[in-house]
Amino acid sequence: MKQNKYDDPEFFLNYDQLPRSQGGLDAASEWPAFRSLLPDLVGKRVLDLGCGFGWHCRYARRMQAVSVTGVDISERMLERARADTDDDGITYLRCAIEDFDFPAGTFDVAISSLALHYVERFDQVCRRVSGSLSAGGAFVFSVEHPLYTARAEQDWCLGPQGERLHWPVDDYQQEGPRHTSWLAADVVKYHRTMASYVNTLTDAGFRIARLLEPEPSPEILAVNPGWLDDYRRPMFLLIGATKDIVRTDG
Amino acid sequence: MKQNKYDDPEFFLNYDQLPRSQGGLDAASEWPAFRSLLPDLVGKRVLDLGCGFGWHCRYARRMQAVSVTGVDISERMLERARADTDDDGITYLRCAIEDFDFPAGTFDVAISSLALHYVERFDQVCRRVSGSLSAGGAFVFSVEHPLYTARAEQDWCLGPQGERLHWPVDDYQQEGPRHTSWLAADVVKYHRTMASYVNTLTDAGFRIARLLEPEPSPEILAVNPGWLDDYRRPMFLLIGATKDIVRTDG
Repeated sequence: MKQNKYDDPEFFLNYDQLPRSQGGLDAASEWPAFRSLLPDLVGKRVLDLGCGFGWHCRYARRMQAVSVTGVDISERMLERARADTDDDGITYLRCAIEDFDFPAGTFDVAISSLALHYVERFDQVCRRVSGSLSAGGAFVFSVEHPLYTARAEQDWCLGPQGERLHWPVDDYQQEGPRHTSWLAADVVKYHRTMASYVNTLTDAGFRIARLLEPEPSPEILAVNPGWLDDYRRPMFLLIGATKDIVRTDG
Repeated sequence: MKQNKYDDPEFFLNYDQLPRSQGGLDAASEWPAFRSLLPDLVGKRVLDLGCGFGWHCRYARRMQAVSVTGVDISERMLERARADTDDDGITYLRCAIEDFDFPAGTFDVAISSLALHYVERFDQVCRRVSGSLSAGGAFVFSVEHPLYTARAEQDWCLGPQGERLHWPVDDYQQEGPRHTSWLAADVVKYHRTMASYVNTLTDAGFRIARLLEPEPSPEILAVNPGWLDDYRRPMFLLIGATKDIVRTDG
């Protein structure tokens, strides 16, 4: 069952009000970290899984990617993406992340921003991304951090005055769906452990190049002082992986 | 300043009462996971950083390692290790983990069990281990999990009846010393983020082969039903890494 909350009018309206929906990449606290993981995009063929409004697709073209394919399940988001894009080098495809299927070696770089924690089968995604990448290709993605997805409540433990005491963790080893209420009732996210993210990638033939748990940059904090609490626990996990050319582990 | 709590008589007495001190490897809940990360040890030269009572050293010899060097700062622990060992293939050296220094290519496998969270400079350890390993050599270690070291209290958030509500996380991004009271007053542990463990290894020329956050095995749970709560948050982080032969990330 593939979730498509973004075509739910109420959810979409709420999502559309988020700073990142209005301000794009620079309004996303993890964007500097995400950008730091991207390889040189000049002349590259790029796949964006869960492309949403197409911010990353257009960025990749500004960085001189030769072509970009954005995949998303939401017709509403793709409508906006198409309206905001005037570039023959970008193709938007309506497709669930679970269903994409491209011939071997179609892309040099695959990216995905905060979409894969909505997908049940991360192993399948990794195998398909690996299959669609050229040798040495890069896979860069962000998800909600395992610390953040462990409890469905996804909220601080509050004191009597509503002050944030600490971030509660529970059920960490129980991977699977979490019925959260982000922007709308019952948004299903999938909790996976850190070990699961890393080992599923290596099992699919990726080598971990970099793993980040970014804190908000000082610039972002100046605009959003409320994000100071993001120093207290990581909200996002970002991984940059490379499709192996040479396997050294036998 | 290198910590040597194990030569503090009170600490040693308490440590000596732990199931793992009495029962050895099979009494340690994370041992099956640790063992699963070890390469074939037949004919290998093994280094054990923080060898303690020498359990892992003797295991490596049983697995037909050709030689094992155990390094520990505690004279008391090495005394016991030597008393319990009758094997010319094992050498115990008194030395702080921070100070070990072996010529390039001295070892094929380096292991360390629950010692490196006592060491301030993980980057230095990684560089020295990498330097002392032959090409393709393995580095397998366990530490207290970043979720576990984030708060110095290292304890559950308790309800009014003393029930364990959840595991509290705070100050995750603040790496550095934590003054804990494990078995004795003021044991200094060093908190590092997951990103820091992974990236420090890759920076030192290691490739991440496997990352584990083990839960207690059913066998261990049958003997220690109180460890059921270890499903609620990981207590240990285990990483198996390989010294790179070919770098593919430029």
